Amino acid sequence: MSTSSGTSLPIYLDNAASTPILDEVIREMLPYFKEYYGNPSSLHSFGRVTMRAIESARARVSSLIGCRRHEIIFTSGGTEANNLAIKGIAELARKSNPKKNCIITSVIDHESVLEAFRDLEKKGFDVSYLPVTREAQIETADLKRTIIDDRTALVSIMFSNNEVGTIQPIRELATITHQKGGLFHTDAVQAVGKMPIDVKDLGVDLLSASSHKINGPKGVGALYKREGLKLAAIIHGGGQESTLRSGTENVHGIVGFGKACEIAAQRLVSYETEIRALRDYLIDRVLYEIPNSRLNCFTQKRIANIAHFTFFGVNGEDLIIKLDELGIAASTGSACSLRHRRPSHVLKAMGFSYAELTGSLRLSIGILNTKQEIDQAVSILSQALEELRKISPFKLEADEQN
Amino acid sequence: MSTSSGTSLPIYLDNAASTPILDEVIREMLPYFKEYYGNPSSLHSFGRVTMRAIESARARVSSLIGCRRHEIIFTSGGTEANNLAIKGIAELARKSNPKKNCIITSVIDHESVLEAFRDLEKKGFDVSYLPVTREAQIETADLKRTIIDDRTALVSIMFSNNEVGTIQPIRELATITHQKGGLFHTDAVQAVGKMPIDVKDLGVDLLSASSHKINGPKGVGALYKREGLKLAAIIHGGGQESTLRSGTENVHGIVGFGKACEIAAQRLVSYETEIRALRDYLIDRVLYEIPNSRLNCFTQKRIANIAHFTFFGVNGEDLIIKLDELGIAASTGSACSLRHRRPSHVLKAMGFSYAELTGSLRLSIGILNTKQEIDQAVSILSQALEELRKISPFKLEADEQN
Repeated sequence: MSTSSGTSLPIYLDNAASTPILDEVIREMLPYFKEYYGNPSSLHSFGRVTMRAIESARARVSSLIGCRRHEIIFTSGGTEANNLAIKGIAELARKSNPKKNCIITSVIDHESVLEAFRDLEKKGFDVSYLPVTREAQIETADLKRTIIDDRTALVSIMFSNNEVGTIQPIRELATITHQKGGLFHTDAVQAVGKMPIDVKDLGVDLLSASSHKINGPKGVGALYKREGLKLAAIIHGGGQESTLRSGTENVHGIVGFGKACEIAAQRLVSYETEIRALRDYLIDRVLYEIPNSRLNCFTQKRIANIAHFTFFGVNGEDLIIKLDELGIAASTGSACSLRHRRPSHVLKAMGFSYAELTGSLRLSIGILNTKQEIDQAVSILSQALEELRKISPFKLEADEQN
Repeated sequence: MSTSSGTSLPIYLDNAASTPILDEVIREMLPYFKEYYGNPSSLHSFGRVTMRAIESARARVSSLIGCRRHEIIFTSGGTEANNLAIKGIAELARKSNPKKNCIITSVIDHESVLEAFRDLEKKGFDVSYLPVTREAQIETADLKRTIIDDRTALVSIMFSNNEVGTIQPIRELATITHQKGGLFHTDAVQAVGKMPIDVKDLGVDLLSASSHKINGPKGVGALYKREGLKLAAIIHGGGQESTLRSGTENVHGIVGFGKACEIAAQRLVSYETEIRALRDYLIDRVLYEIPNSRLNCFTQKRIANIAHFTFFGVNGEDLIIKLDELGIAASTGSACSLRHRRPSHVLKAMGFSYAELTGSLRLSIGILNTKQEIDQAVSILSQALEELRKISPFKLEADEQN
């Protein structure tokens, strides 16, 4: 396996699941393994240099999303950031006012949000899940209908969906939430670094980001928390990250995340145009050249790097495995739900039929992918589908669909 | 700064706070940055190769502490492992039986244990803190006196202390706990990889370990959880780590931790003899050559790499800063408590007077330190103390002490 461009296989088109770390990011991380290995809490120079590195990374992350340095809390990843935001707010809200017992999310939010909500539901919170349209869009009217009084502690809605890419009307949803005295969190793991995001302009109270989705290392993420907002920690100890996230800091991870954010900030405009062009080129070729194929989620309000298809007459998992054999890394949906071999909760919520759901494929483009790779991928995909459809038990069903 | 041996400054003697990553460990991690960057939950080869790497690391970690592979849960570090063990057990125990409301730890446990206990105390748990002797030893009789009936859900006692190094009678404490129907957790972050540990032989139900204390990367740790034992997660989401710790795995971190464990296992016997010899050589020279110095914690039951002194007539923090200027990285106690500029809760619990506490210094030796470095460190320490004592406001007090 290699990240090289050109024609060498395999071709990695699963960048929404994880991304290769950029050389510049690795270069920046390496000194923190062997040279600057001090504990940032230590008073000596080994400690001071790592603490400075963390603060420099914090500045880079905050700069990417338009907040102040001290509004960034480093975590072990997007999942922890979501858990911290949701549990941290819910617990404090109910403690200060037992009536503030309602929390709201959507049916298509990420597992890390949904499972945090289920945990709180078991602990007595009143939980609501907003529906979505066929395009995975949340309607502001649905939030207005749901958030009827001031008992809502928190609304948590993902910025852009990890499976189909739909972008939600975050500013409007945050405004509605604030009008009813609630706080607003957004899981922006799939959006940060891929489009301009300004937390102040959006008016969100909390926002989650992840490093390994933007060519930084795994094991590190961040929660933006608006200045002055009170939050309960979920991991207690030595008091790192302003007591909100204890534990010796993952210094090299944080440094790498900071560098990845800096790079993302520099190429934010070109990212959107270039990746979108590549993605749309892929879509055009697939729809034109591959029979019985359909693009899911046509909306313009979607993130630049995701293309989600249904190929009728095949099983998505079989397709993934066949593509893997032929040299393409892809996904049916989120990596997490693959683990459980569960049909995608997102596609189900979008109202997909069994046949639509079964043949689904997500291709997500990254900054290292080339047009040549896309060309090659379309040929391979075409070949894979031809082979699978010959032997697929879904064949009849597919024919019925078309 | 450099990790090189020989006479090049500075000399890093703060290995209980954090350690340099070994070259072999870095080499093993690097491919997971640029080549094997898949999400372990993905079905394609990029995913499978990272999943296999995690399982191979899990085997190495489990092998070091004598458990089975599936009894290891990877976390973001020792602090999270402690929080998961303590909160995860306490929450479930009280849910299954509201009477099981008592939890016990010691006054000298790590902040990540103590703060998790304080959090549970706020949530209505009945918390007890076992005292220690002047040598930081917990007496089994104190646990017997405290754990009077079957209402105790969990006892959590650290394996070896991070400031003074005392090793606790874990097997006996676990037995007493089990006799009363409680579960036993030990924070072994300062002991794993530094002495033989067999969780089955010890009879503990849960044990925490950390990577960056044994020349592995920061940002990763593990919790041993006995097979069959039920635990509630504190971070929910995609269901990684058998649903007990969700979030995309920190693959390179886990791989590095695995390698660090393998290396530690190979050199476990030599570590103890060599590091202890170096440590005792340091102690002998310090006590012989530096006036008004005292070794704290004489007990044989202490970890091989820590030497804890009091130098009367100086302030420990001033000493750290002076040593840093002269090229030695050291600590007064734990890095975490330094952050808060609080006097050490461990030394206070050991009954230290103000003068004893004030002049304290922890030197912790690592596998990269050399005898030459120790020699140089003693000279520098001697010089630093001489300079500080000339100008110290603690001078009189020091004279009184001797």
